[in-house]
Amino acid sequence: MPYKLIEKKELTEKLDILSNLKIDMYQKDFLLTWEKTYDEILATFLVAEILRSLRYSSSGTRLWDSGLAVSIFKDNSTRTRFSFASACDMLGLYVQDLDEGKSQIAHGETVRETAVMVSFLSEVIGIRHDMFIGEGDSYMREFGEALDDAFKKQVIPDRPTIVNLQSDIDHPTQSMADFLHLINYFNGIENLKGKKVAMSWAYSPSYGKPLSVPQGIIGLFTRFGMDVVLAYPEGYDLLPQTYEIAKNNANQSGGSFKVVSSIQEAFKDADIVYPKSWAPFSVMEKRVELLKANDQSGLKELEKQCLENNKKFMDWECNEKMMNLTKNGNALYMHCLPADITDISCKAGEVSKVVFDKYRKDTYDEASYKPYIIAAMILLAKRKDPAGTLKKLYEMGQKRILA
Amino acid sequence: MPYKLIEKKELTEKLDILSNLKIDMYQKDFLLTWEKTYDEILATFLVAEILRSLRYSSSGTRLWDSGLAVSIFKDNSTRTRFSFASACDMLGLYVQDLDEGKSQIAHGETVRETAVMVSFLSEVIGIRHDMFIGEGDSYMREFGEALDDAFKKQVIPDRPTIVNLQSDIDHPTQSMADFLHLINYFNGIENLKGKKVAMSWAYSPSYGKPLSVPQGIIGLFTRFGMDVVLAYPEGYDLLPQTYEIAKNNANQSGGSFKVVSSIQEAFKDADIVYPKSWAPFSVMEKRVELLKANDQSGLKELEKQCLENNKKFMDWECNEKMMNLTKNGNALYMHCLPADITDISCKAGEVSKVVFDKYRKDTYDEASYKPYIIAAMILLAKRKDPAGTLKKLYEMGQKRILA
Amino acid sequence: MPYKLIEKKELTEKLDILSNLKIDMYQKDFLLTWEKTYDEILATFLVAEILRSLRYSSSGTRLWDSGLAVSIFKDNSTRTRFSFASACDMLGLYVQDLDEGKSQIAHGETVRETAVMVSFLSEVIGIRHDMFIGEGDSYMREFGEALDDAFKKQVIPDRPTIVNLQSDIDHPTQSMADFLHLINYFNGIENLKGKKVAMSWAYSPSYGKPLSVPQGIIGLFTRFGMDVVLAYPEGYDLLPQTYEIAKNNANQSGGSFKVVSSIQEAFKDADIVYPKSWAPFSVMEKRVELLKANDQSGLKELEKQCLENNKKFMDWECNEKMMNLTKNGNALYMHCLPADITDISCKAGEVSKVVFDKYRKDTYDEASYKPYIIAAMILLAKRKDPAGTLKKLYEMGQKRILA
Repeated sequence: MPYKLIEKKELTEKLDILSNLKIDMYQKDFLLTWEKTYDEILATFLVAEILRSLRYSSSGTRLWDSGLAVSIFKDNSTRTRFSFASACDMLGLYVQDLDEGKSQIAHGETVRETAVMVSFLSEVIGIRHDMFIGEGDSYMREFGEALDDAFKKQVIPDRPTIVNLQSDIDHPTQSMADFLHLINYFNGIENLKGKKVAMSWAYSPSYGKPLSVPQGIIGLFTRFGMDVVLAYPEGYDLLPQTYEIAKNNANQSGGSFKVVSSIQEAFKDADIVYPKSWAPFSVMEKRVELLKANDQSGLKELEKQCLENNKKFMDWECNEKMMNLTKNGNALYMHCLPADITDISCKAGEVSKVVFDKYRKDTYDEASYKPYIIAAMILLAKRKDPAGTLKKLYEMGQKRILA
Repeated sequence: MPYKLIEKKELTEKLDILSNLKIDMYQKDFLLTWEKTYDEILATFLVAEILRSLRYSSSGTRLWDSGLAVSIFKDNSTRTRFSFASACDMLGLYVQDLDEGKSQIAHGETVRETAVMVSFLSEVIGIRHDMFIGEGDSYMREFGEALDDAFKKQVIPDRPTIVNLQSDIDHPTQSMADFLHLINYFNGIENLKGKKVAMSWAYSPSYGKPLSVPQGIIGLFTRFGMDVVLAYPEGYDLLPQTYEIAKNNANQSGGSFKVVSSIQEAFKDADIVYPKSWAPFSVMEKRVELLKANDQSGLKELEKQCLENNKKFMDWECNEKMMNLTKNGNALYMHCLPADITDISCKAGEVSKVVFDKYRKDTYDEASYKPYIIAAMILLAKRKDPAGTLKKLYEMGQKRILA
Repeated sequence: MPYKLIEKKELTEKLDILSNLKIDMYQKDFLLTWEKTYDEILATFLVAEILRSLRYSSSGTRLWDSGLAVSIFKDNSTRTRFSFASACDMLGLYVQDLDEGKSQIAHGETVRETAVMVSFLSEVIGIRHDMFIGEGDSYMREFGEALDDAFKKQVIPDRPTIVNLQSDIDHPTQSMADFLHLINYFNGIENLKGKKVAMSWAYSPSYGKPLSVPQGIIGLFTRFGMDVVLAYPEGYDLLPQTYEIAKNNANQSGGSFKVVSSIQEAFKDADIVYPKSWAPFSVMEKRVELLKANDQSGLKELEKQCLENNKKFMDWECNEKMMNLTKNGNALYMHCLPADITDISCKAGEVSKVVFDKYRKDTYDEASYKPYIIAAMILLAKRKDPAGTLKKLYEMGQKRILA
């Protein structure tokens, strides 16, 4: 699809599919993929693809001539920050960042008030809050409830939509971009049925990496009839509830979900591998306690222990030997980036240089979908008739560029 | 007015009133409300209301297709930062923040040069500089003189307007938003004549809160025939000159201005109460000396003393008992937010939970006017014929949103 | 030209000249002026002037209705930051800053990946990286190669252009703005032939000032038949290769380039003087070593030595006595600002108060060209037919302002 003008026929087909999907996304937030129906997930992919086509054909994609987008990052971010800025800019929104400081854990009056104060003229609120187990998702919901209340009481003229830019539970803009990459890589969602994907822990010398990526992957990929295998060393469990979600998804989609304790077993005959480091759930929980108590020495000690423990599993590396276990030794390697590359970013890491180099372009393509996914989430929450809006946009024939 | 399309008739009426006001705001800065004539204050309210109507009817409100707005915050800000960003965005301006560091007190060449360097393609400069008695307002004037000079010498093609986002003397975007809230709450400016408003000091465990809010309130509210009572414990005086201004305003408007040393006396039969903490003028003056001398231990000592002294007046709290003193126990509670709420943001604060909860929606409404007040200040300073511009804007029938 | 509407005739003439220049700037970066042909330099001046005329006649100058501009500042900046923001805004681009932290020196995978991650929907990348000899320019080239590769592999739909906002080698947006100031000050580029310009070191109590300004000046001014004299005390050499470039330029342009060790000799009969402080090349080199080794005490020691050494040359000040040496005691004083002004910004500095005051307006005018130079660099790199685009822009008759 890229690099050519989108044809009326192609667009019309996509819009027809979109109009026939049963979705209820208007004025709703996007916090967890498993709170969205299958049709709603499909709609998000479709709109992302349409916006991408329009952008690649240098059509205008502004749905607003002015309006504010608020970003709240309670953790560092480059990729997601730029994806959010790109998504908002292509829709005509101007991003204003709310910098409350990272460590701060807010609740109650503070959250309620902040939510309203930044929303008087805002259309969307993008929030990253992933470093504190039990905090991120609940912060976003508190924020959303404050907006509902303010909208109901006519304090704000419009209800901005919240886009989860990574919480302690899910990372929907990542997992959705990852999956859209798969759809295009394997030429169609139908071709993913029965494919084996290995979401595996991998060694990293760093510490405290969020769990939301693996949780997001097993929570989403299990919805499309894939055989999803989650692998990690003993003790590196994810949030308990996410296993249930993955199992149920697999049952309903005719796929499967399995947890194993060997990366080799996970990679065996896999079509897709996603080797990535994360911190054990239990460690992250303890970490939050220490942070709340501001116990610095305790935090140092915990980090030391955790890094020590990681070292036991340095053989959990995605290298050629591992890749040779995959289907035809040729599985698609995925990563949300930045990856810890052995001999590049660290002495020993998640992936070997050779493997990463081979798939670099693929990981970049994977990342390239995120701005369109975010834009799609915004459009679907802010327009009653997304298909109609996109049709109008196309027929206006606006150009983004004055050549 | 909110939540419905503005009707031609309503707009025309407002524009007729606007055209008949005698104002001289073009190319002028907005630093102190008492430097503006009564008609100019009315014009600001009118334009704010018109812009609000247009926004609520999702009309386009862009007066620029590109252009820079500069923000300079020498003190932290969330509300005002977002209000300024919203105001600029709705007019089509892009905000670039100038971060010079907060503590820095600049004068002379530095201010003159900075003013010019950020203004080559800028339309408005929003400045918050409120923490240093004797510094904020003079900084803004120095900045403005540099712009006048650069414009006269044709160094800059246009003279950006300065909007005071809070100085050591006044906080016009706050007091104007507060008063526009009153106009709407009491259904018309004429209904405010004779109303009693209590601007009272209240206890807070925090320190160094600027005086510009109470100063701004007594400097503005006294212009509309209200009975303004300022209350504070001994030693918590405001800037001397602001008392004169309030007195003169009251005389001219047929209202009254009185200073008392009891919150109870102030609240007695009040229609409106504005209980808020601030640091004594003398303390703020001493603080500036110590800051200039960078006397850290001195600053700590001063803070300690000040907090100790505050404790003597912990009974200056806006609670139900206090509210019962007001007219029908039912006065309107106002606050610029965030308020120090007892048992919520602190053990003992400016207002009790019960009272704050009862009036939360009102305080949010109060805050909601600020973006429109700022936008009005910009429009009135940057357009020779504001009524004409707004008429044109309306007749263009631009939509802000592609539905 | 300023302050009046650009006339069709004037624009047409400029566009004719532009169309007849042999340039190959489309999809190219702007890193060093001496990598650009004479025609390409002229084209940049021409486009800057045209955009300036359009702006001054309040015509719309947006070439994009949306699109991202990325700024990367590895050194502090106010002037250049605002110039870049202004340039992008006038073209319709929205600036998103990438803040990687200043001290960080990145290479390889990190640079390659960052380049792609911020470029999916970006049109231009502005980079300042001037504090590390041997690092800045190479960082920009690495960044550019990553973009070439990503574009070739269709990872990014478009190749953003890189604008050097100051590297360790050149500061093209500064030197080009400086020279455009000269063209207008002396009423035409032809009048600069044979003029003597003194690029001289001057005393400053500060340390570590980049060499890119003097290097940029001798690298550019020597291309127009001027007699360029570079003066500095023993030991304050610039990057060796820049002398070669200046010599060759002078030979080709029929001008001259000379290095002397006396500010008096440089100022003698000069038409233009550019007295400015910089750190010796050798010191900057050593500084980078110490920074890489994070040798804090070593850095302190080096700074101490360097400041000590500067003191030997406190008589290198641009004062009235020095100015009297220049042609009719009336040479044009230039500076990139902020200047170290004796008795104003420091006890003893680069220039005396009297001299600076006399030329303040000129230095402001000098700075005023930078936004247009940057906008021109962007336009020339992002449009195949710049003259055609500008013609279209003019004929559309778009207004920037709704009056």
